[in-house]
Amino acid sequence: MPQDRHDDPFEWIDEESERRSRAGLVRTIKPRPADSPLLDLAGNDYLGLARHPEVTAAAGAAAARWGAGSTGSRLVTGHTELHAALEAELAAFCGFEAALVFSSGYAANLAAVTALSGRDALVLSDAVNHASLIDGCRLSRAEVAVVPHADPEAVRKALETASPAPEAAETAAETPRGSETPRGSETPRGSMRPRRRALVVTDSVFSVDGNAAPLPGLAAACRAYGAALVIDDAHGFGVLGDGGRGAPQGAGLAGAPDVVVTVTLSKALGSQGGAVLGPARVIEHLVNSARTFIFDTGLNPAAVGAALASLRLLRREPERAARARAAATGLYERLTAAGLSAVRPDASVVSVRAPSPEQAVQWAADCRAAGLAVGCFRPPSVPDGISRLRLTARADLTDQQIEEAADAIVRTAPTA
Amino acid sequence: MPQDRHDDPFEWIDEESERRSRAGLVRTIKPRPADSPLLDLAGNDYLGLARHPEVTAAAGAAAARWGAGSTGSRLVTGHTELHAALEAELAAFCGFEAALVFSSGYAANLAAVTALSGRDALVLSDAVNHASLIDGCRLSRAEVAVVPHADPEAVRKALETASPAPEAAETAAETPRGSETPRGSETPRGSMRPRRRALVVTDSVFSVDGNAAPLPGLAAACRAYGAALVIDDAHGFGVLGDGGRGAPQGAGLAGAPDVVVTVTLSKALGSQGGAVLGPARVIEHLVNSARTFIFDTGLNPAAVGAALASLRLLRREPERAARARAAATGLYERLTAAGLSAVRPDASVVSVRAPSPEQAVQWAADCRAAGLAVGCFRPPSVPDGISRLRLTARADLTDQQIEEAADAIVRTAPTA
Repeated sequence: MPQDRHDDPFEWIDEESERRSRAGLVRTIKPRPADSPLLDLAGNDYLGLARHPEVTAAAGAAAARWGAGSTGSRLVTGHTELHAALEAELAAFCGFEAALVFSSGYAANLAAVTALSGRDALVLSDAVNHASLIDGCRLSRAEVAVVPHADPEAVRKALETASPAPEAAETAAETPRGSETPRGSETPRGSMRPRRRALVVTDSVFSVDGNAAPLPGLAAACRAYGAALVIDDAHGFGVLGDGGRGAPQGAGLAGAPDVVVTVTLSKALGSQGGAVLGPARVIEHLVNSARTFIFDTGLNPAAVGAALASLRLLRREPERAARARAAATGLYERLTAAGLSAVRPDASVVSVRAPSPEQAVQWAADCRAAGLAVGCFRPPSVPDGISRLRLTARADLTDQQIEEAADAIVRTAPTA
Repeated sequence: MPQDRHDDPFEWIDEESERRSRAGLVRTIKPRPADSPLLDLAGNDYLGLARHPEVTAAAGAAAARWGAGSTGSRLVTGHTELHAALEAELAAFCGFEAALVFSSGYAANLAAVTALSGRDALVLSDAVNHASLIDGCRLSRAEVAVVPHADPEAVRKALETASPAPEAAETAAETPRGSETPRGSETPRGSMRPRRRALVVTDSVFSVDGNAAPLPGLAAACRAYGAALVIDDAHGFGVLGDGGRGAPQGAGLAGAPDVVVTVTLSKALGSQGGAVLGPARVIEHLVNSARTFIFDTGLNPAAVGAALASLRLLRREPERAARARAAATGLYERLTAAGLSAVRPDASVVSVRAPSPEQAVQWAADCRAAGLAVGCFRPPSVPDGISRLRLTARADLTDQQIEEAADAIVRTAPTA
């Protein structure tokens, strides 16, 4: 036992806690009841499926049939025929050759970024990417460059700098150091090969502001330089694309040989887990090398069964995707018509700016008093330091609910 | 689309795949059916609870009542009263002030190691630690030193090197750079303060060989130098300690102010998820700073409900823990009596050496043909490059099942 304060290894935690407290940035977790009287505009259950009776019944049936847990890593005992069915249907739905399920979207992102880069690789990461992509970059040991937000031209320039044009490579070949570039290369004019493995990593829809990445431009930049594109479609899958097939499908990138997509099963599908979608050889590579696949217990059967039921429900009711988008647009239009500063939603997330962290917290509390649960994002969870309310418009909200929610948000807005 | 092979960003994957194939190290995943005719000695369902009717019914009931998913991060909508109940009961059972549940043990380990270290910290990590602890070290940005396996003296030496004795610090105070060490420090003689944050990180029971870490010696070394001790009790929780309260409780470390424990809900509790246990201020610190807590969706209610039901079952039937240990010892004794090279189990995992990766794979296949599912660990999943069968002896195996399993393993053993 520590003999005095000097021996206390966690003394620094109290100091950090005091600093957070002085800055008004202390977070506490408050459990919610099963039946909340609040209207939920905070969760990521975009299609309103988390409590759908078919989905929750499938969770229970899967636990009864397959067990409460998968009992091991997917390479040992944790891979069931239920996992295989979900992977096959996910891949087919999104238009990719193969899919691999993980215990979370976080784990899927760590896997995709680390297994597809490595020590000699260059990874270009959007400045506003999700924490799990950033952690993937940190774990990758690659050279990581943060590129300006949603800017294909910046990606082109960064790849250009890293990748000498064929002319430049040929010049280099005349130096004593030599070059492996063959003379008379078949590379088409205007297209350049990277001198090493390169990966561009982006969210499809950015979590905090709900704005979309310019996927066609990013894909074109990648192709001009032989780089691979990794797209985290956590907030696009189920909402964007034909019948919710996701942002990459909407951008014409489904099944592309140089594109890898990650999705989450915990948002539009109302369950838990994540998946990587891509060419079969990429998925086989992940099975053999991704640490968060090899060394993690397989997703529990209840979550697998629920995700599969949600996916089948979405195929049967594809209008849910369009409804989620329309609900978000309706909410946005009402808020901005009343003078609030919001970001036009590209999917189902509506972001409204608050003047300060303190006012954001107060605004969220006032919304709660008015019967609304809203997300409140503030530093350090926001990359730009701007506090905001984050609202999600679910597919199962009625027009009247959206109208009343907008009224309450406007009524409680801080006067800047 | 790539115009030629030079534009294919995943060409290197084919090359790696060929290399793996030539080395006989290709992994494929084979889904298992719900009702396997094999006796399972491969999964980590140590207490035989994953398919216990009370546990699977609790999973289904939780999904029905709380939804198939938690719908958001724990700081937004993903924290339910069910999560809070599990955290309170886990903390009380293991004897710690507080607990925090994560979506996986992997995420819990990333959280504990990163949030308790940081750029200026020193982290000492056992050479045979689990991948998730290693990834936590990599993400921490701390100075990480790998220390020899299960060696408190090596930990002492590493802390000694990093931490000048009070005498040395006083000498340093006389240099122009100064020192914050107060003269006449209250630090007791023979005890030294680290000059910076220091963390010692170890598995309690090592996954591959099933051997235990010398927790009392490690704790004493940490205390002598004011370092914190992080113990991953994935394979001890539910099996070791009084009634399965875990290896730290068995070592007299439950509730210690300088010890933080991680557990998994996917092994002894037969569900999914992980948790960090420790002093309340450490848990509060994780809520405010651990990225795999803040930026991950909360664990799905079915998994929370199942883990809670298993925990209550274990409290009611504490003999399950002792039975899991006895089953492992019985299996070990039969195998070694027949001349196989096995590691004496400290918990529920029995590791048996194989002469080569190829023979390990063949042995596992022969066991399967004889009706046994066994784990087969080979490079790169084994830190020392030694291939082995990994057997888990569940609490619900009968003596006859253990006897028949041992006979089959001995009968199919390769002749080295």
